[in-house]
Amino acid sequence: MVAELISVGTELLLGNIVNTNTRYLAEKCAALGLSMYHQVTVGDNRDRLADTVRTALQRADIVILTGGLGPTEDDLTKEVCSEVMGFSLVEDPHTRKRIEKYFENNIYKEIPENNWKQAIVPDGAIVLDNDNGTAPGLILEKDGKRAILLPGPPGELYPLFEKKVVPYLQKIQPEVILSQMVKICGYGESQVEDKLLDLIDGQTNPTIATYAKTGEVHLRITARAKEPEEAKKLLKPVVKEIKNRFAEAVYTTKEEESLEEAVVRLLVKYDLTAATAESCTGGLLAGRIVNVPGASEVFKEGFITYSNKAKRKRLDVSKSTLKKYGAVSEQTAKEMAAGGVFAADADVCVSVTGIAGPDGGTEEKPVGLVYMACYLKDKVSVECWHFKGNREKIREQAVVKALDLLRRSILQNYQKEKSKDKG
Amino acid sequence: MVAELISVGTELLLGNIVNTNTRYLAEKCAALGLSMYHQVTVGDNRDRLADTVRTALQRADIVILTGGLGPTEDDLTKEVCSEVMGFSLVEDPHTRKRIEKYFENNIYKEIPENNWKQAIVPDGAIVLDNDNGTAPGLILEKDGKRAILLPGPPGELYPLFEKKVVPYLQKIQPEVILSQMVKICGYGESQVEDKLLDLIDGQTNPTIATYAKTGEVHLRITARAKEPEEAKKLLKPVVKEIKNRFAEAVYTTKEEESLEEAVVRLLVKYDLTAATAESCTGGLLAGRIVNVPGASEVFKEGFITYSNKAKRKRLDVSKSTLKKYGAVSEQTAKEMAAGGVFAADADVCVSVTGIAGPDGGTEEKPVGLVYMACYLKDKVSVECWHFKGNREKIREQAVVKALDLLRRSILQNYQKEKSKDKG
Repeated sequence: MVAELISVGTELLLGNIVNTNTRYLAEKCAALGLSMYHQVTVGDNRDRLADTVRTALQRADIVILTGGLGPTEDDLTKEVCSEVMGFSLVEDPHTRKRIEKYFENNIYKEIPENNWKQAIVPDGAIVLDNDNGTAPGLILEKDGKRAILLPGPPGELYPLFEKKVVPYLQKIQPEVILSQMVKICGYGESQVEDKLLDLIDGQTNPTIATYAKTGEVHLRITARAKEPEEAKKLLKPVVKEIKNRFAEAVYTTKEEESLEEAVVRLLVKYDLTAATAESCTGGLLAGRIVNVPGASEVFKEGFITYSNKAKRKRLDVSKSTLKKYGAVSEQTAKEMAAGGVFAADADVCVSVTGIAGPDGGTEEKPVGLVYMACYLKDKVSVECWHFKGNREKIREQAVVKALDLLRRSILQNYQKEKSKDKG
Repeated sequence: MVAELISVGTELLLGNIVNTNTRYLAEKCAALGLSMYHQVTVGDNRDRLADTVRTALQRADIVILTGGLGPTEDDLTKEVCSEVMGFSLVEDPHTRKRIEKYFENNIYKEIPENNWKQAIVPDGAIVLDNDNGTAPGLILEKDGKRAILLPGPPGELYPLFEKKVVPYLQKIQPEVILSQMVKICGYGESQVEDKLLDLIDGQTNPTIATYAKTGEVHLRITARAKEPEEAKKLLKPVVKEIKNRFAEAVYTTKEEESLEEAVVRLLVKYDLTAATAESCTGGLLAGRIVNVPGASEVFKEGFITYSNKAKRKRLDVSKSTLKKYGAVSEQTAKEMAAGGVFAADADVCVSVTGIAGPDGGTEEKPVGLVYMACYLKDKVSVECWHFKGNREKIREQAVVKALDLLRRSILQNYQKEKSKDKG
């Protein structure tokens, strides 16, 4: 089946906001096994929206529209789709009640009059309750074609899609489609593809799709089958083989787990407290860790020692190391990590020191050169990277690599202990 | 004149990446005074791309295509546009030389054979040299319609558009269009619109467009005229009036200056060194400041004192304050800022302490409650905010408000000194 996306909103045509909904929906549709050939953005204009909907219904089986379901006169998506597909509009008592209830729990005492517009639905449409806003989602079915109308704000769209639209799309598909995520850190996209060439080349079912993120590669393995059990059976050996090939470079197989969440999970698992010692990343590394809910249990303290003076005072980096090797060096990175452990009284500390540019590079130490170290249980691992891109890109990549160094250091330490126990 | 955007790339249809190019180009086109009614994304497919180009050329004067100019067989944009518009393809000796030169400075010794494909151009097209890649930009003009073909990678697209396409579009416009940015911090979008209602309501030339960002509102004032001088004359009084109404809430009128850049500019101007003391923002505040090139001149050190112990040890927050008022309190924020100044031996320190959630909130101190303080010259300003949204949103908003508190504290201090001097 073919799906097409229509984003409705003049603010998109003016470039006021980035269209992140389209990426989200496109990835979800791909995971559901739907083909997609067109994505269109159109403004809050009756004639152009009607034309766009008509064209989309001709070339796709499922048209997903986002935006234009609000209470103002500009919001036309429901009205235009009903007209194009031949539905009349009626008030839905259930939605009216839901809106009343929504406003009960709201800070507004009175319900703005135009909100009742959102209780009007196409007669015969499937109404999807929106738990995070007043506009319901709507599904219009006619002559084998389907239009799915969803609210634009991501905070309303995402949960509505997950909870209501995914099950609907799964049900109308002739097959069951299951997918499994494998997230990898430490390999580039082309390296990952090289290592999986034999699997990707011959693939029909399951299929493997790669998604490149900063410093990470995400793999989505998707299987189609008549029954869920059968799809699971198809997925299992492929996921196992990929995990074997990438070993500890796989940091999670959970769809929603981020790299920093995997790190915090390991810290909690092994009952470790952590600290960070940053120079060029200037707090972004700690910022990622602290963004994990519950990080306060494991994160003790962060040092942003941008100046040499702070490196000495806070982390006890020796004057002679800074003089002999410089602030951006293996030796300084090591002493920063060790110093962080002692100063914060933590079990583990990861440090980053580098040249983020655009100035400050030399032939010997060019812009993008970053040293990082991880100190854990009297053992220190150190890594040297040379990142490309602008200042922001260099720092972003350094943060990912430092998180991964922390993750691998913990794994290596405890896997060694495990194998020692066995021996 | 009407412009339409076409993004070419199957990776967009699969949701592998967010389409940030479209937002960039849409904002640029709006600033150039072009109308836009459609944005379309289509895959690397000959027939569908040809259909999309044909439709766009019917309904728009200028069609801007991004992507599909690479050296592989999948890259079809140039070939398809030439076919649709009736251009033949020829090798461009100038571009061939440029590609040769590009590879001279590259790490690759040999030029991959398929790169020569990028020296082939539509006969009669305007060729735009790409300083950051091998694929040139191309402009095809026929029967009053224009197709502008640009490479997809933002690092190539943005400079090419700024340097070559903007002057081209300005030249073909019947009018001169000039715009001026005014960036505001401390007012919400609707507050800004309320304060400008009389100006916005009556606007025809210049026009005022508002762009809401996290914690900020950007205003673009655009004027049309026959001559640049005339457009400048139209802009000037409106910009002046807006600056009057928002006074020091205007942090910059420079298109490219960010809030943290404005803060660093003020620190440099008044020869101040800064430190940060963060709890719930966990390093993100320092991270924003350090992202400004040259921040090392003014930024001394950052403290990420997530635990009470670290707050006491690093920032000398008193035990009794933490006990009596709690870690999230006006008193603690003040002591953190003062402690940061003394510990880092800096002139100014801004502190943040709050409840980012999802847990840890109480009726008295709910999730989203954030205190921040700024200590400068023996004077401390403190603010209390109650942010909405998830953990990430709360922290993001807190960082913006803290940057702005730092900015306003500096301004107020030095403006006072100035008026004292006068008195």
